[in-house]
Amino acid sequence: AIVGGGVIGGGWAARFLLHGWDVRVFDPDPDAPRKISEVVANAQRSLPLLADVSMPTVGNLVFSDSIEDAVAEADWVQESVPERLEIKHRTFEAIFAAAPQHTLIGSSTSGFKPSELQQGVKDPSRLMVAHPFNPVYLLPLVELVPGDAAVDERTSQARALLRSIGMKPLLVRKEIDAHLADRFLEAVWREGLWLIKDEIATTEEIDDAIRFGFGLRWAQMGLFETYRIAGGEAGMAHFIAQFGPCLEWPWTKLMDVPELDQALIDKIAQQSDAQSGQYSIRELERIRDDNLVGIMQALKQNNFGAGEVLNQHDRQLARLINHPAGLDDDTESLQSHLQQTLDEGNGRPLFLHRGRVLPSWLDYNQHMTEARYFAVCSEANAILFEQLGLGKSNTLGGTGHSFYAVETHMQHQSELNVGEAWHTATQVLSSDDKRLRLVHCLYATEDERLAATCEQLFLHIDTRQKAACTFSDLAAQLIALLTRAHAGLPIPDGVGRHVGQERN
Amino acid sequence: AIVGGGVIGGGWAARFLLHGWDVRVFDPDPDAPRKISEVVANAQRSLPLLADVSMPTVGNLVFSDSIEDAVAEADWVQESVPERLEIKHRTFEAIFAAAPQHTLIGSSTSGFKPSELQQGVKDPSRLMVAHPFNPVYLLPLVELVPGDAAVDERTSQARALLRSIGMKPLLVRKEIDAHLADRFLEAVWREGLWLIKDEIATTEEIDDAIRFGFGLRWAQMGLFETYRIAGGEAGMAHFIAQFGPCLEWPWTKLMDVPELDQALIDKIAQQSDAQSGQYSIRELERIRDDNLVGIMQALKQNNFGAGEVLNQHDRQLARLINHPAGLDDDTESLQSHLQQTLDEGNGRPLFLHRGRVLPSWLDYNQHMTEARYFAVCSEANAILFEQLGLGKSNTLGGTGHSFYAVETHMQHQSELNVGEAWHTATQVLSSDDKRLRLVHCLYATEDERLAATCEQLFLHIDTRQKAACTFSDLAAQLIALLTRAHAGLPIPDGVGRHVGQERN
Repeated sequence: AIVGGGVIGGGWAARFLLHGWDVRVFDPDPDAPRKISEVVANAQRSLPLLADVSMPTVGNLVFSDSIEDAVAEADWVQESVPERLEIKHRTFEAIFAAAPQHTLIGSSTSGFKPSELQQGVKDPSRLMVAHPFNPVYLLPLVELVPGDAAVDERTSQARALLRSIGMKPLLVRKEIDAHLADRFLEAVWREGLWLIKDEIATTEEIDDAIRFGFGLRWAQMGLFETYRIAGGEAGMAHFIAQFGPCLEWPWTKLMDVPELDQALIDKIAQQSDAQSGQYSIRELERIRDDNLVGIMQALKQNNFGAGEVLNQHDRQLARLINHPAGLDDDTESLQSHLQQTLDEGNGRPLFLHRGRVLPSWLDYNQHMTEARYFAVCSEANAILFEQLGLGKSNTLGGTGHSFYAVETHMQHQSELNVGEAWHTATQVLSSDDKRLRLVHCLYATEDERLAATCEQLFLHIDTRQKAACTFSDLAAQLIALLTRAHAGLPIPDGVGRHVGQERN
Repeated sequence: AIVGGGVIGGGWAARFLLHGWDVRVFDPDPDAPRKISEVVANAQRSLPLLADVSMPTVGNLVFSDSIEDAVAEADWVQESVPERLEIKHRTFEAIFAAAPQHTLIGSSTSGFKPSELQQGVKDPSRLMVAHPFNPVYLLPLVELVPGDAAVDERTSQARALLRSIGMKPLLVRKEIDAHLADRFLEAVWREGLWLIKDEIATTEEIDDAIRFGFGLRWAQMGLFETYRIAGGEAGMAHFIAQFGPCLEWPWTKLMDVPELDQALIDKIAQQSDAQSGQYSIRELERIRDDNLVGIMQALKQNNFGAGEVLNQHDRQLARLINHPAGLDDDTESLQSHLQQTLDEGNGRPLFLHRGRVLPSWLDYNQHMTEARYFAVCSEANAILFEQLGLGKSNTLGGTGHSFYAVETHMQHQSELNVGEAWHTATQVLSSDDKRLRLVHCLYATEDERLAATCEQLFLHIDTRQKAACTFSDLAAQLIALLTRAHAGLPIPDGVGRHVGQERN
């Protein structure tokens, strides 16, 4: 249940919905359904681009006309009402009165401590701060502050739940005003106000000082890890010895709070218009989200920071969803696929790999670039070879045998667009005791449109001798079975052809 | 000239060298050559990955044994000596005594104002603060502070020069202690120290509070643009009205400076070891650089923030280099290549693309993965099409025409290993008024070993109509010339063959 809509409540709703949860929303604002639908629409165009596995079927969204109705069957209630303590207290009273005994309640408050929120509630250990960051549907961070009333089991439950929707719960062990991140934001905000008031810099110049420099560092490592590097081999203590004295220099005006009078507000608003006024807020949101997707996908490639969280989440999603064939651990093995295929008497291709077209895969024509067609087929090979006992884990395990591609022929049949789901269907064409010829058909999943065929010939290699060698007995059996199972399948167009050959 | 080596001076040296400048370094530390070489090596593995066009031939690096020798012929001197004013003054005295009249001098100082640096120098308008951010060879930001002695023409010269090496000069109009960005960093640092001292959070928890949340935002937009979005349609003034009052809450300890005693230093150093001690500084640098490359490449796709700077820089580089048609960078355009080829009466292939095998390109067999063979040929296509006036800049420029690959045949002939230099040789096989068939031969440069052949058929497409269409007149002429020039070349093995066809 979401109590309190708006940008934050809507962002939570979107994260839950897109992870398959049913969501009930209560917000007295008659405009809440429109606002939340807009946030969910934004989330739907960006969040799935972060996952390299399929996401669950979207849950149901229902608008309730009372807190009681919203929370009556809720496992988790997320409160995002305005930042006034008396409103929060009234809200929690209503939630506790109507929610089941097991329900946990997270508050999106950016300023209040859990002890303040928990005043007067009947079971304070069920109520914790779960403070997210905008856009909630993309940014992984959530500050989880259970406070002194914490019960370990409930904290663990909350962390597991937040992880299941792709978030990175940061447990704040001691409650403190504004938790952690907002303290930093406030420090920077306050310094920014001074710079504007004193006409040292405009909002745009301040933003540029952030986003072209340390902002790029902080998307991956924080303050301390970055400075650890700056300290070099001499280490962190050395860095502090160098930098520490500067703290006592009169660099900043932080000792004082600028008076936020109308003149300063007007100045900031005017500068902000000059900086970004050419975009509507919707456009800015989309720019921001596209950039976040690109940045997080890049970190995913390197399995670092937010990218590591995303990769872990992919594995979790894959287990959850029970992938059709092959990608995850507990689905059908090649052996059982083969057995089933032979039992049924009719071969079918292997569905080894699928995904979505990522923004970084586009070329300047705005569709998936030619080399990516090959890359996804190549990934399908890696999955197949792993199952044949001739893949990465075996090679690295020291068998000294591997498959090398010797020849490839691709036909690009149609464009794939950003966000579009694709899958591969792989068919063995022929094999002998050391060679395997197969063809991948790459499809757009939605309309089963053929995007490409990719015919390949592989040679089994003894990587120590750097020479072709025969398959192991098990691999030979599997490959022979596969070849037999696929013998009756129609041969896709494009197989056995050379470049430029007239089509049939 | 670089006066003062170390991480910052070395980063500057690397940026200049990789943009083709000759660099002389003076640093009295006998270990400086080793340190700078390490920084340059880091830069060489990462900076070229940001460019989608070829970079100039790397300049010469010379170590001087005096400031006089280093600066005697310098157009730009970058000073990065220790942050002590008397050392800076002595250094500037020596530089002004020996440098030519036109030489501009940038100081990497993070703390001093230009008026402090300029005391006593003979022409203060030639000396400005040019404060970069680590790693200097990757991060675009440089704070340019000319101070009250500024002469517009010199400031413009400095900005143009910094842009030419891929940086984003941010002109700081009024001098102020610590310029802009470091004021924010200091504010965050100070708040971080309090959180550690009071045992609210560890270095790792603080870093996580940054990098999983607002750090991801700040890699693209800064503080104010981000908050503009948070304010929604009601705008910036509305946001301030909501958030402003918090400034007066007792959230932070910023009114006071924590005492940086040995106990606090030890605590930070220990927490930092626990957080990142599993990596050496070299490893952390590479992780950081790989992430920065990925993040900035993602922003480049979206042409936003640092990505916009990189795209502009690519265009600048492309103009500068007049694109490689041969292996040397300072060379021939396609037209002159063609003319020369026809004049000589013997065709030769186009040498369009080259590089080295990067660590991230390897598969588990420890050589370049199959899909990369295709990717580098695909990059060669992009360079060729750009020259034919049918490439990225033309398509994005709105001609609405582009080349689409329809068919590809590759033969993998030999392995490419990490660090190995490779180049492509491209030969046109046939063409008509809307089709182009060519073959790339991918070679290991050192021993001219053939690594792969890649035969491709392209169709000229009207991207608005989504239909094949004839070439423009200019492209048709160039392609016809090219086809004629290459008509006499021997056809590489593998061309015109289908997968599995017996070799000759």
